[in-house]
Amino acid sequence: MHPRRVLRLIGLLVFFLGLSMALALLVSVIYQEPSAWDLLWSMAVTCGAGLGIFLGTKGEEITHLNHRDGVAIVTVGWFAAGVVGALPFLFSGSIPDFTNAYFESVSGFTTTGASILSDIEKLPRGLLMWRSIIQWLGGMGIIVLSIAILPFLGVGGMELYKAEIPSPVVDKLRPRISETAKLLWKVYILMTALQILLLMAGCMPLFDSMCHAFCTMPTGGFSPKNNSLAHYDSPYLDGVIIVFVLLAAINFSLHYRLLKGEAGIFGKDPECRVFLGLVGALILVVTLDLYGSVYSTLTSAFRYAAFQVSSMITTTGFVTADYDTWPSLSRIVLLLCMFLGGMAGSTAGGIKTVRVMLMAKHTYQEMFKIIHPHAVRAVKLGGKPVAGDILSGIWGFFFLYLALYGLAALILAGLGMDVISALSAVAACIFNVGPGLGSVGPTQNFLAVPLLGKWVLMVCMILGRLEIYTVIVLFIPEYWRK
Amino acid sequence: MHPRRVLRLIGLLVFFLGLSMALALLVSVIYQEPSAWDLLWSMAVTCGAGLGIFLGTKGEEITHLNHRDGVAIVTVGWFAAGVVGALPFLFSGSIPDFTNAYFESVSGFTTTGASILSDIEKLPRGLLMWRSIIQWLGGMGIIVLSIAILPFLGVGGMELYKAEIPSPVVDKLRPRISETAKLLWKVYILMTALQILLLMAGCMPLFDSMCHAFCTMPTGGFSPKNNSLAHYDSPYLDGVIIVFVLLAAINFSLHYRLLKGEAGIFGKDPECRVFLGLVGALILVVTLDLYGSVYSTLTSAFRYAAFQVSSMITTTGFVTADYDTWPSLSRIVLLLCMFLGGMAGSTAGGIKTVRVMLMAKHTYQEMFKIIHPHAVRAVKLGGKPVAGDILSGIWGFFFLYLALYGLAALILAGLGMDVISALSAVAACIFNVGPGLGSVGPTQNFLAVPLLGKWVLMVCMILGRLEIYTVIVLFIPEYWRK
Repeated sequence: MHPRRVLRLIGLLVFFLGLSMALALLVSVIYQEPSAWDLLWSMAVTCGAGLGIFLGTKGEEITHLNHRDGVAIVTVGWFAAGVVGALPFLFSGSIPDFTNAYFESVSGFTTTGASILSDIEKLPRGLLMWRSIIQWLGGMGIIVLSIAILPFLGVGGMELYKAEIPSPVVDKLRPRISETAKLLWKVYILMTALQILLLMAGCMPLFDSMCHAFCTMPTGGFSPKNNSLAHYDSPYLDGVIIVFVLLAAINFSLHYRLLKGEAGIFGKDPECRVFLGLVGALILVVTLDLYGSVYSTLTSAFRYAAFQVSSMITTTGFVTADYDTWPSLSRIVLLLCMFLGGMAGSTAGGIKTVRVMLMAKHTYQEMFKIIHPHAVRAVKLGGKPVAGDILSGIWGFFFLYLALYGLAALILAGLGMDVISALSAVAACIFNVGPGLGSVGPTQNFLAVPLLGKWVLMVCMILGRLEIYTVIVLFIPEYWRK
Repeated sequence: MHPRRVLRLIGLLVFFLGLSMALALLVSVIYQEPSAWDLLWSMAVTCGAGLGIFLGTKGEEITHLNHRDGVAIVTVGWFAAGVVGALPFLFSGSIPDFTNAYFESVSGFTTTGASILSDIEKLPRGLLMWRSIIQWLGGMGIIVLSIAILPFLGVGGMELYKAEIPSPVVDKLRPRISETAKLLWKVYILMTALQILLLMAGCMPLFDSMCHAFCTMPTGGFSPKNNSLAHYDSPYLDGVIIVFVLLAAINFSLHYRLLKGEAGIFGKDPECRVFLGLVGALILVVTLDLYGSVYSTLTSAFRYAAFQVSSMITTTGFVTADYDTWPSLSRIVLLLCMFLGGMAGSTAGGIKTVRVMLMAKHTYQEMFKIIHPHAVRAVKLGGKPVAGDILSGIWGFFFLYLALYGLAALILAGLGMDVISALSAVAACIFNVGPGLGSVGPTQNFLAVPLLGKWVLMVCMILGRLEIYTVIVLFIPEYWRK
């Protein structure tokens, strides 16, 4: 590892994060909020610190980086971004406590969407905008992570996507954002803009539309309203959100190929087919469960089931109904959605569809082997055989997720949280969903979680977001040798 | 597959199960219970049916069986044993309903220990004895399964134990119980006898001692008392049970080697070390959680923690405290215990220690590979490299367990059970533990579970007991081809 090169890049990151506060500042100025000064002050401190680090590490070749540097940059980068994101909350006194401010910020940058705010609407608009910008930037970070880092590190079978990256082929980690990332960012920006327009077409104010769109594409789920999307109670707006959370949970390279003219690509891609089929099936189950028991019409049951299943499986976390009062089948389905997550190469969290598919296919092969012990049949995806190494990586990844999940749930329960709240809070954070069940349910927030619990959940968010391996290799002694 | 050969062996099994009712009949006669007639009648029907099947398939070579026959025998055998076991309950009217009687019987033969009886002590002693005998016979069946079937089918990495079977090497499935099975049955019988003596030394009546010992070695957990072991409230008896459930959850070939004079074998075997270490660690966690919150003295906290952790991790299910009222950390630890289970080659259920170890080791290797992508290092157990095939089998097994678990929990929740009860009922049955949490907790029973739910749970018990694969291959089209 090259610590100074890593530091130099972190400096650059911090500087640009500072610049991105400009939009929030502009909102604050337009609405003549006193917190404009706090934002300006945060911006100055952040840009100054970033620039200081950058200049202090002058002469470092940041175009030459290896795997180890990449791992360090993303891990340190996400933790550092959390600090930057917390500054406006701290300086303005909106969230006076560091742990809470850092929690809100890390929850934003990891696009989790778990909040410690009891009264969101009390916040000045500039800060609400900053809260949304954080998620939007977090989503951009994930795009870079999933095309430039994970496939090359081979995290959890992500080598699978090495060949799929559209163009140009990235053959090593590069300090400047790769061409691929730029292409996919364009898709990301385009879809965000389109969503803002569509939300406004449904009579959502510009400010609200921007905030929600900024939190949809990264599957983040922060809302400037206390009641999230339930505030508007509009089937049209619910529909727009459903479409865009699902789009956000689809591999971004498929969007790129769609824009390039490959019609029907969603139906051709094996992972996408399974993902959308799964969403449909789970919506059906929840609709049938809610019809009669919670909603008297099939239309209402379908509307709320479709929204909540889509919101949870894409790990966004927007809310239109207090699903914690739903029957237990629906609640378990939503918990299952958190685990499943969206597609690889999207901004969604969770185990990811392709991994679940490959694990299921592998399991079927093992059954087949019992009958034909000597037959050799490879697991295939879309007709192509999948290397044993990739499967191996996926299993390791899966086990690590479950082990971390179990450990974190034990700690939260040990701190006094009830069983369902502890189990769902960890799922909501590790899979970057946001709201859970019980005391961290859709009408509640994470403020009451004990101090240590908040830190555990923050670590879960970052580990989950960086697919665990990326962080955990830093703690392997071999990482530091050379 | 040779259906007639399979049938002939099932006939033999049924006949011997009928004979085994003699002990229960004897108890009934001694206590001059009217149900003696019901037992006699059950015995006659069972022996008659078994003999009929056996004679009706005369001329079949039952010494020549292949893998496919083995799979069919164990699966059909366990379902058929369930029917036989239910007869005395039905004929005596103690459990007048077939579903409930079959549930109690399947729960017995799979050594699960989940009961639908609200007032156990109301049952005649002959039937209580029969209920315990069922579990004891189930345990003997598992020993055969785990030495003669699973290693040769390669179920969930059990090829690992092919080489370990003490003597003589079993090179193909044999219709007569192998020499190995006979050796291990001797150990099983010896330990049961020793436990009866030790329980009686603690002033437990002979009848109760026999019933409890019959349900300890198979890690079954049926008790003739409504309050299970809490009935006696004796630290000495608790201690005896703790020691014997732990012994029952240790690979039986280690017991055999210990009796052969290999002192310290428990400490030398890598799986055994981890298993006992894990038990110790979890007891410590629960003791600390209970001390102060539930029990005011450290001794009491330790006593109940040690008992309940040992009872659950060995998947026995005896109860000395209403752990459903314990703090959530302890409840989650007990839920975790159900998943973990005991050692392979024992009568315990669950994922099994060796599988968890190998999954963890494999996961560590995957982390190592991220740093050294080209290094080839095999996963090792006790210093010996473990073949990739074995790991592959374990992952498939693990995923299948989780998938079945999720599916069954969704069905139970859909039938109206609350989240914790549904999640724990499935764990309690699939891992053959017995009691769960919530409405199927230690002071409750499974009577109120809806009809369909009971059948789902019975399927879970049998699938869990036969390590899923053994049953599920029957449903693969390839199984039926030739």
